[in-house]
Amino acid sequence: MSAGQLDVVGIGPGNPKWITPEAASVLAQATDLVGYSAYLARVPTQDCQTRHSSDNRQELNRARQALSLAAKGRAVALVSGGDPGVFAMAAAVFEAIEATSPIWDDVQVSIVPGITAMQAAAARIGAPLGHDFCAISLSDNLKPWAVIERRLVAAAEADFVVAIYNPASKARPDRIQEAFARLRRTRLATTPVVFARAIGRTDERIEITTLAEADPTKADMSTLIIVGSSETRLIARQAPASPYVYTPRSYGARR
Amino acid sequence: MSAGQLDVVGIGPGNPKWITPEAASVLAQATDLVGYSAYLARVPTQDCQTRHSSDNRQELNRARQALSLAAKGRAVALVSGGDPGVFAMAAAVFEAIEATSPIWDDVQVSIVPGITAMQAAAARIGAPLGHDFCAISLSDNLKPWAVIERRLVAAAEADFVVAIYNPASKARPDRIQEAFARLRRTRLATTPVVFARAIGRTDERIEITTLAEADPTKADMSTLIIVGSSETRLIARQAPASPYVYTPRSYGARR
Repeated sequence: MSAGQLDVVGIGPGNPKWITPEAASVLAQATDLVGYSAYLARVPTQDCQTRHSSDNRQELNRARQALSLAAKGRAVALVSGGDPGVFAMAAAVFEAIEATSPIWDDVQVSIVPGITAMQAAAARIGAPLGHDFCAISLSDNLKPWAVIERRLVAAAEADFVVAIYNPASKARPDRIQEAFARLRRTRLATTPVVFARAIGRTDERIEITTLAEADPTKADMSTLIIVGSSETRLIARQAPASPYVYTPRSYGARR
Repeated sequence: MSAGQLDVVGIGPGNPKWITPEAASVLAQATDLVGYSAYLARVPTQDCQTRHSSDNRQELNRARQALSLAAKGRAVALVSGGDPGVFAMAAAVFEAIEATSPIWDDVQVSIVPGITAMQAAAARIGAPLGHDFCAISLSDNLKPWAVIERRLVAAAEADFVVAIYNPASKARPDRIQEAFARLRRTRLATTPVVFARAIGRTDERIEITTLAEADPTKADMSTLIIVGSSETRLIARQAPASPYVYTPRSYGARR
């Protein structure tokens, strides 16, 4: 029996208008769809296509299930939110392959990129990522908090714009509070901060605030937070339009 | 005369399969397309649509031209490579708006996100951005080299994966050499480094090497470079397949 194909497909942050033609085509041609139930629900149903849905937080099991189906000769699409390569399913797939190599060596794996939350959030408000930036996940399930803290300090000291993924969960509600406290030591109170929740979905909510006033309790696991650099600024607009938030390409021009 | 609309549209790194439905729709509905000639050449032609092409490096002039057309009531699509919000046209548009406010206050500006080079490059080789990462442009046209250097040091010390945009140009061929030298001080010689050129285009070229062996002369302005963290690793595959490159979600598990 010849091994099949596993495509790890990014469907973006939650609106079909951001699903690339490549992703749509791969999803349509798969014999099996594997994924977190909330992501599978966003993919149009097709006859003759089997769906294997699972709970969130089962990344490694889900990756193994997808690889196993592909090894049996199926054409498997593992559905990922956002971009599978950015805090999503792609790394879990390679962890599974590495841990059990060479069992899945014959499976053809390919990654289909997608729009990730920080891009969609940035686009909604202006161009906050218009200059050097970093992306940090606050989830400390798989890495020590000390590593995250070191990165927040480095990002603040080197004046990167910071996109924060997985800012909060029931298991660790105060991590984002600690992160803000850390950033406040080096960044001005007036630094723009953006809370972007469920971007592109019907329950989308965006709040533009400052580092001084940023309220950690407003973040949940569907929230992406962007903390500006010293250069990030607002351009006021006539009400009811909210201001643009952007980081210019030049640095230090105002000083 | 009522003001028009300016959409800043990301068409991805160079393959139509990565143009989102949102971007395709906005491009099709525009009365005017503005952009660098190489990007405009990737957009299907339409009758009754006016094209305004310009040379590269004219970002601010191009932004002003697009705003000016929109202010006259046109539906303008400003075509950007990759994601307009990531080292591309969106920031230039807001710079133009800020510099001349309130002249263009009536123009409706919206940003249409796209797949950016680091995502496409990452997808091609595995999941190198599977953990915390930062994105740095080496172009020092608009920011002092000292700022770039400070960010490289911070990124290296905090063990971020680093995506390097605009690594080299005729005007500054040795910046990437300096960047590698800087990263070599703190990162192992065996750290995976990826040169990804013209991803998704017919002249695509990908090279996987190490920090010790990375040859700066192989980078040009169409190259995106990814330098791994201490966790980034290779999974060997049977020849002729090149290895997967990925950064696991967990940190320090091997130590």
